[in-house]
Amino acid sequence: MTASLNEMANAIRFLSMDAVQAANSGHPGMPMGMADVATVLYTKYLKYDASAPRWADRDRFVLSAGHGSMLAYSTLYLSGYASPTIDDIRNFRQLHSPCAGHPENFELEGVESTTGPLGQGLAMAVGMALAERHLNAEFGDDLVDHRTWVIAGDGCLMEGINHEAIGLAGHLGLGRMIVFWDDNRITIDGSTALSTSEDIPARFAATGWHTEECDGHDFADISRAIDAALADNRPSLIACRTVIGKGSPNKQGTHNVHGAPLGADEIAAARAELGWDYPPFVVPDDVLAQWREAGKRGTEVRYAWEARVAANAKGTQLLDRMAGKVDASSAIQDYLAALIAKPEKVATRKASEMALEVLTAAIPAMVGGSADLTGSNNTKTKATNPLSKEDYSGRYVYYGIREFGMSAAMNGMALHGGIIPYGGTFLVFSDYCRNAIRLSAIQRQRVVYVMTHDSIGLGEDGPTHQPVEHVMSLRMIPNLDVFRPCDTIETAECWALALESEDRPSLLALSRQNLPQLRTDISKNWSARGAYRMRAANAARRVVLIATGSEVALAISVADRLEQHGIGADVVSMPCWERFAAQDDAYRAEVLPEGPLKVSIEAGVTLGWERYTSDGIRIGIDSFGASAPAETLYDHFGFSIDTIFHKIQSKLDN
Amino acid sequence: MTASLNEMANAIRFLSMDAVQAANSGHPGMPMGMADVATVLYTKYLKYDASAPRWADRDRFVLSAGHGSMLAYSTLYLSGYASPTIDDIRNFRQLHSPCAGHPENFELEGVESTTGPLGQGLAMAVGMALAERHLNAEFGDDLVDHRTWVIAGDGCLMEGINHEAIGLAGHLGLGRMIVFWDDNRITIDGSTALSTSEDIPARFAATGWHTEECDGHDFADISRAIDAALADNRPSLIACRTVIGKGSPNKQGTHNVHGAPLGADEIAAARAELGWDYPPFVVPDDVLAQWREAGKRGTEVRYAWEARVAANAKGTQLLDRMAGKVDASSAIQDYLAALIAKPEKVATRKASEMALEVLTAAIPAMVGGSADLTGSNNTKTKATNPLSKEDYSGRYVYYGIREFGMSAAMNGMALHGGIIPYGGTFLVFSDYCRNAIRLSAIQRQRVVYVMTHDSIGLGEDGPTHQPVEHVMSLRMIPNLDVFRPCDTIETAECWALALESEDRPSLLALSRQNLPQLRTDISKNWSARGAYRMRAANAARRVVLIATGSEVALAISVADRLEQHGIGADVVSMPCWERFAAQDDAYRAEVLPEGPLKVSIEAGVTLGWERYTSDGIRIGIDSFGASAPAETLYDHFGFSIDTIFHKIQSKLDN
Repeated sequence: MTASLNEMANAIRFLSMDAVQAANSGHPGMPMGMADVATVLYTKYLKYDASAPRWADRDRFVLSAGHGSMLAYSTLYLSGYASPTIDDIRNFRQLHSPCAGHPENFELEGVESTTGPLGQGLAMAVGMALAERHLNAEFGDDLVDHRTWVIAGDGCLMEGINHEAIGLAGHLGLGRMIVFWDDNRITIDGSTALSTSEDIPARFAATGWHTEECDGHDFADISRAIDAALADNRPSLIACRTVIGKGSPNKQGTHNVHGAPLGADEIAAARAELGWDYPPFVVPDDVLAQWREAGKRGTEVRYAWEARVAANAKGTQLLDRMAGKVDASSAIQDYLAALIAKPEKVATRKASEMALEVLTAAIPAMVGGSADLTGSNNTKTKATNPLSKEDYSGRYVYYGIREFGMSAAMNGMALHGGIIPYGGTFLVFSDYCRNAIRLSAIQRQRVVYVMTHDSIGLGEDGPTHQPVEHVMSLRMIPNLDVFRPCDTIETAECWALALESEDRPSLLALSRQNLPQLRTDISKNWSARGAYRMRAANAARRVVLIATGSEVALAISVADRLEQHGIGADVVSMPCWERFAAQDDAYRAEVLPEGPLKVSIEAGVTLGWERYTSDGIRIGIDSFGASAPAETLYDHFGFSIDTIFHKIQSKLDN
Repeated sequence: MTASLNEMANAIRFLSMDAVQAANSGHPGMPMGMADVATVLYTKYLKYDASAPRWADRDRFVLSAGHGSMLAYSTLYLSGYASPTIDDIRNFRQLHSPCAGHPENFELEGVESTTGPLGQGLAMAVGMALAERHLNAEFGDDLVDHRTWVIAGDGCLMEGINHEAIGLAGHLGLGRMIVFWDDNRITIDGSTALSTSEDIPARFAATGWHTEECDGHDFADISRAIDAALADNRPSLIACRTVIGKGSPNKQGTHNVHGAPLGADEIAAARAELGWDYPPFVVPDDVLAQWREAGKRGTEVRYAWEARVAANAKGTQLLDRMAGKVDASSAIQDYLAALIAKPEKVATRKASEMALEVLTAAIPAMVGGSADLTGSNNTKTKATNPLSKEDYSGRYVYYGIREFGMSAAMNGMALHGGIIPYGGTFLVFSDYCRNAIRLSAIQRQRVVYVMTHDSIGLGEDGPTHQPVEHVMSLRMIPNLDVFRPCDTIETAECWALALESEDRPSLLALSRQNLPQLRTDISKNWSARGAYRMRAANAARRVVLIATGSEVALAISVADRLEQHGIGADVVSMPCWERFAAQDDAYRAEVLPEGPLKVSIEAGVTLGWERYTSDGIRIGIDSFGASAPAETLYDHFGFSIDTIFHKIQSKLDN
């Protein structure tokens, strides 16, 4: 006997109801409402093989409305992925279960991205769809030929980031992307009419999208809409008219079913209503068998692809690209030697461009871009031609004035694999994309943020454009390496470290203003240790100056002045706090020994520097900046040799 | 002789060219391109009186494309505002000139809002337009009857926040808002065609806006479009087709004119082209006179309004509302006494609701809302009915899933005056609106952020929803008070402080989980000191436990355990770092004396706590959270009495 699509969809509904009930926490409404659409997708359209979750040419499916995580866990279990098991689902939302409250890519191979922060799944999917077209242009239809599917809720489409994401997708003509909008007209607060009056399809159409509408509970109509989407060469939005919590006889269609367990009575009523005579977490054999069959739909397709890979001259190259190993350090050796031979006094944003020229030439996986600050972020290199709708083989994306959309798209590219994305904006606008940076870190993705104009050193643009709290506050995001290099050498070193860190994002904070080349030793990558003694005291050591980025040169000048007065001073450059924290105690004690007065110098907030200065001196700026030329500001805010020298001298005299 | 509109517009152009040239920095392109539109606006439509910049019933004008600040400075000077002077303009972008790189509301009375971070000016204008309608509903057409005008660039309309802002404006039918889109088809990177293909008017129409298009260099056509916008009851977008840098014969229409001085030669060429035979910073008498005439257009209108205010029963009340004084402390005295009489064990988000019930009843200026988490943020009270298109007198805004848009709108309401806005979301999504919080702080506006679910204590939703780094990283934003109260009493105290802080925003970090009422002394607002000794050691003091929010009760339990072992321990509650830092040395030394071991307990990152613990112990969480019930997580991450007690004991034994 063959189970019906309806029964298959009900399996999703009951797993979702039962898991949320068991956890006494979660969101049953969305999985129940979108169960029919998901069933059509997984049984007929999605290219996947449950036995090979990481198959490179699989379709990507992103549950942007991540609170409906039970939809993902249900389809993965039902279609036969090794994980999650039914026991994992029974332990939904419990410690150590891979079935977390929101889908987590690092917990389950079948989960393409960590979602929950609304709108970002959709925006990451744009990055995945872009990655597919780019790799397709490079490796051809035989090797790269898949689609990106998204389920998005009303929340995803109200969040600002969706505007940036669909604008980018429409502009780049990402026709292999299909978004299902769960049009259930309910948000947490109640009817969508409380807060929005938008004609969503019209808005998508205005941005170059094809749009369809369907009854989200009519299997044939869902298929019709998908077929129409597949036939159109634009990205498609399918508005699926659904009833949230469909199947809950007394609660469906209301916000009460959105984010709370239905309760035992209502679940019993749903069982009666839908004729589902099975205990919690039990899926009848015929329904499970039918689902497992669906999970094997792609196996032969995968075999055929593997055969094409084996036969294709670029096959191995593609597999290597997807594996993601790079040796950036080797790539920059000659460049470092050339810098030593001929030192350059340039801004670190320029130093970044110089390093990028070398790196992008050597590492084809790198795809760069900027949120409309190309000439300021210095992110474009000779090797990276523009990527456009007409030429997806390009390696430079003009992201437009879309910092958040850019960052999420980069997350999507990294998640897709085969690409190491980097992108630029002003450091102050890390605020605009901060949660995407956080998601890079949670998802353990190699994304490189090139954040220039990293202090009051940007000058005249004034306080709205001068990051003050940003460097330190970014250091607080777990699993993110924040680099603030001081010269050409450190910048190249930090770039190499960022590219070789496969399991985390990196952020480079770079100066607008020119900085002298300070490093003379390239025998090893000193930045890898996070902090190191750049210069040892000459006179008896009484002071250790600790500085980052543009303030390291100032620290050297202060040290010179101290030495002139017979006060020995080390200068420690600390380009990366996270890496220094990871060193052993002995190394850290050697670099920052007990005894001497510690003085930090960084053109940002001082809160946090107590970690390394204890009762020493913290030179920083604890207010907003001002509009004036950079040199004026440095002086005004106390970053001058005189001011710092006198503070130290006065402290030593006490 | 009467100067022509063309000459008046050219005055803006040359002041802009000359000031940018003198500063050797700035953005001449936008002011030159929009000079004609601005001239029509200021000479014919905008209701203002240059002699009374803060007149309550003036129209609001927001330069959302803030980099074109010379447009604002030029119109203010030309129309006769006392500030800026021509000398201020000569000192454009120099230290202490009020003519900063981007317009700053705290520098010039005629600047309604600080802009530069793109999209936010538009979104703040939505808040201003909403404030106008709300006050109109309360005080009537005689007293409140003005419009909100915006100039927005392509960047403003690419940023995600614009989607949230126009969605809110369209939904709420803010028909007295008119946005000029500077449709110059140029961004920093080059043609807009590099990054966008959107039909912007179609998108606005999809969101309930009326749209017009005009030739931005044809005075009659500009007037026609404005007249059409005035006649429509929807918010209006006027697409002004312009040439960026109009008047620069060799550079206009290109991105080279966007953000750099034109150069002496090109400015000379522009003078020749436009027949402007005057030295830099000199405006011919007839042109200046004509502008000054325009600046007086509103004087009689203002006199008439003042007469109506004097005659109206609600006139004084409106003036008081606009002055913004409130006495929140008095309003909560009875409530505090009731709490002492009958302590409540509730989540601080619930404690916030309880305080809000009292405060919103007492303070009509308070207008609340939530980004679709009303029931979770506990922001709605009996006194605050829904504000809608049908009833602007409501005091509760269903902002929808628009955290950034909500925050910027609140900035706009506060800037407008007469309203004290507060709004809620989950603390983790402070990331989504972080730059608007920063702009609240830069602009010195009384906006209250109600951020709930403030730690791993939120439980099952998992790491995407668990703020870990947020409380500390928000403490780094200058001029922002971050409050993390521990119980009902502190929550009420912090609310009172937030409402009485006229020159800064406040952020309340509130728990999802229930917390015992700890405070017994309401003789004074102890939270006002930022930190205070909640409990003194009984045995000889060897430890000072410093905790915030939900961890204060845990600290008390740890202190109990320590005392059982004969180890005396103070417990210090520290609800607000910023306020504690502002206390005198003696008070701070009394609360955190030298000698005893300092132990911080906060369910967030430990970086930063060195400020108060020096070489003591920092109990915190330096990784992302996990999905599990709250109690499980607290234990898992080491927030248990046993774990902390043993760490302290072991440290004391060393």
